[in-house]
Amino acid sequence: MDNTILIKNAFILDPNNFENKKQSLLIKNDLIEEISDEINEENVDKIIDATGKILLPGLINTHTHLSMTLFRGLADDLSLDSWLNDHIWPMEANLNGEYCYIGALLGAVELIKSGTTTFSDMYFYMEDVARAVEDSGIRAVLSYGMIDFGDGEKREAEIEENLALYNACNGKADGRIKVFLGPHSPYTASEELLIRVRELADEYNMGIHIHVSETQKEINDISDEKGLRPFEYLEKIGLLGPDVVAAHCVWLSDEEIEIIKKHGVKVSHNPCSNMKLASGISPVSKLIENDICVSIGTDGASSNNNLDLIEELKTASLLQKVSTLDPKVLNSDEAIEMATIKGAEALGLADEIGSIEVGKKADIILIDTNSANMVPDSSSLSSNVIYSANGSNVDTTICNGKILMENKKLTVLDEDEIYAKARQAIKELKEAI
Amino acid sequence: MDNTILIKNAFILDPNNFENKKQSLLIKNDLIEEISDEINEENVDKIIDATGKILLPGLINTHTHLSMTLFRGLADDLSLDSWLNDHIWPMEANLNGEYCYIGALLGAVELIKSGTTTFSDMYFYMEDVARAVEDSGIRAVLSYGMIDFGDGEKREAEIEENLALYNACNGKADGRIKVFLGPHSPYTASEELLIRVRELADEYNMGIHIHVSETQKEINDISDEKGLRPFEYLEKIGLLGPDVVAAHCVWLSDEEIEIIKKHGVKVSHNPCSNMKLASGISPVSKLIENDICVSIGTDGASSNNNLDLIEELKTASLLQKVSTLDPKVLNSDEAIEMATIKGAEALGLADEIGSIEVGKKADIILIDTNSANMVPDSSSLSSNVIYSANGSNVDTTICNGKILMENKKLTVLDEDEIYAKARQAIKELKEAI
Repeated sequence: MDNTILIKNAFILDPNNFENKKQSLLIKNDLIEEISDEINEENVDKIIDATGKILLPGLINTHTHLSMTLFRGLADDLSLDSWLNDHIWPMEANLNGEYCYIGALLGAVELIKSGTTTFSDMYFYMEDVARAVEDSGIRAVLSYGMIDFGDGEKREAEIEENLALYNACNGKADGRIKVFLGPHSPYTASEELLIRVRELADEYNMGIHIHVSETQKEINDISDEKGLRPFEYLEKIGLLGPDVVAAHCVWLSDEEIEIIKKHGVKVSHNPCSNMKLASGISPVSKLIENDICVSIGTDGASSNNNLDLIEELKTASLLQKVSTLDPKVLNSDEAIEMATIKGAEALGLADEIGSIEVGKKADIILIDTNSANMVPDSSSLSSNVIYSANGSNVDTTICNGKILMENKKLTVLDEDEIYAKARQAIKELKEAI
Repeated sequence: MDNTILIKNAFILDPNNFENKKQSLLIKNDLIEEISDEINEENVDKIIDATGKILLPGLINTHTHLSMTLFRGLADDLSLDSWLNDHIWPMEANLNGEYCYIGALLGAVELIKSGTTTFSDMYFYMEDVARAVEDSGIRAVLSYGMIDFGDGEKREAEIEENLALYNACNGKADGRIKVFLGPHSPYTASEELLIRVRELADEYNMGIHIHVSETQKEINDISDEKGLRPFEYLEKIGLLGPDVVAAHCVWLSDEEIEIIKKHGVKVSHNPCSNMKLASGISPVSKLIENDICVSIGTDGASSNNNLDLIEELKTASLLQKVSTLDPKVLNSDEAIEMATIKGAEALGLADEIGSIEVGKKADIILIDTNSANMVPDSSSLSSNVIYSANGSNVDTTICNGKILMENKKLTVLDEDEIYAKARQAIKELKEAI
């Protein structure tokens, strides 16, 4: 039996067409079946009246560590180095699969409530994160964060772990899970590991998720060791390609921007994390001018400290304007693209998600403009979403044709139960230190 | 008959004491009557159980143009110059008192919903803005934006207007309204006007609200005309003093920072507007190091595009960290101070508002931490508010002892009616162009 949902009277905000169109949209099972001015309401299983609401593709967060939502606010006002070494890594030493499952569920609640339907994750205990994806109804690209620091035995174990994740989870949860390779970074993964990653990516047709050029220290360390800047080094060893999503990309020379462009590397921009850790400002408007695919990520909640992608997009836009002293760069249409079609391209999912088109997966959110911070609606739809709204204005979240939140009420997850479990988990983790 | 409200089990976040204290607070009429571990519930008119909620002083927005909420999203991705000359000033030419009243009411809804209880405004038709303050129950410092461009006749009329506002409104609305002088800026107000403003400020004991050093163009223009940078010029003509609130202060020489400090000038920082219009980055952490009083403002919604002071504080903190490449500057405690006690000092209201103390006005908000973006609450209260929350997490807003919002429902204003009127107003204003 088919399941159908009709959303009527919505203002459709689509990255392929920024006209302000009021239309109806029909979902059949997991797909967008029809978009038009008038759709027959007979025999439809459910009707959602979206009068006064903006309909857009479910947002795509291309770089996060979902289970780290447990560590929200654990360590603030610190450099990346001290934050990682003195606070996060000691806490992570006591993680287990159940804690990561709870952290990922807590993150999933926040994603659904703020309009994100797809996230790309890199962390540990990823099969437990996959369980949270399965249970919550969202979509994910999962990678295991491989770190070998040059240790050959550790390297093999890390690769095994990422491949086991692939074998167990790729294509699971009704196709909502895709597995990537996750070499953590060029300063934590050895050259041997990175070379193996490229071989495996080609063999298994898996994407690659990696942190690159986040801090000045990283640039200096890699330059000292390799005599090359990070992207020069990664090009030399053959890692780069259009299947690589490089998170952060803060410190880039003009030559490195050329390298990124030449190999079709996808960039995941994480402005709040880069600002909060004082890592630096990624030259995003220059990347966009160079036709490089730039998507958006929140990074983990522990360096942000939330997963609100709309807040992240406003920050991204405003930061580019002030850092270039040009108010026209990264306009609100471009910001919408970053969180929709560019995110889909980054994750190799542009055929399935990232825009409102017949035949694509029904990953859809509604934003209610009848809110104090969005009235009057005399602006463009994208301006109202990017500059005025935040994640709390998201009203309805649908992923793969299934309603995960309607009128701000979760329909699948039990948030109070998850909050209680998350509080207990961090209590135990703090006691274990 | 006294009216009493007991708020129990609240985590109190007070700028004078950042300890994480769970206490109860009693309001009697317009004042904070008692703060202690246990307050007798007998004979209390109303009890609010604030379990899981953070109680803090009502936030203080020291620079906005509330009626401009009507112009939200009207003109984006433009420089200040083009934004003002080509879009805002033509639209403002058709404003009238009723439009400004409606715009101010719309702004008041947004302020109350996002936890701001006091705002400092500079605009036109200020007696109509005062009506909106009276009707909405919030607190305000109002100034009429005086612009003479060197025209003597206009100058007298502008001064008359600001003094008429003082005579009509100062101390009104149960003492919730205070009137300041509002010379718009050193590039729109003549030297003669600014000298008169200082005389009147001394004579009437009125504060001064002025835009200073917002853009590089302004610095260049004033330097060309006066041979001095803006604060050097304002010092020379005798305008400066501890009763001056200077909005923006983006482009400051070290000498100007010394001048600001020497005269006790108060700074209102407006990061979102400065970023969106690509005006520049104010050296706020340097100002704070110099013990200068820095408060926070949203500027008008038309260059922001919302009035969410919690979002503004996160942006302020993150922008200082990344622009100085020091993650320790403008920490979350300092951010809380900016929106509370520093705002009160800026407006000459530190004896009345800005902290949770017995005898101060009961301007109080509650933030519900039982929200996806604020769980788990393992961080400091200030971190959770500044880095994780946004205005939508505010649950209850009390001003002058009166509940204006409880459990996210407005108790005084009718938001749907105000939204409808605001939509009609901007429709008419657009048609009039």
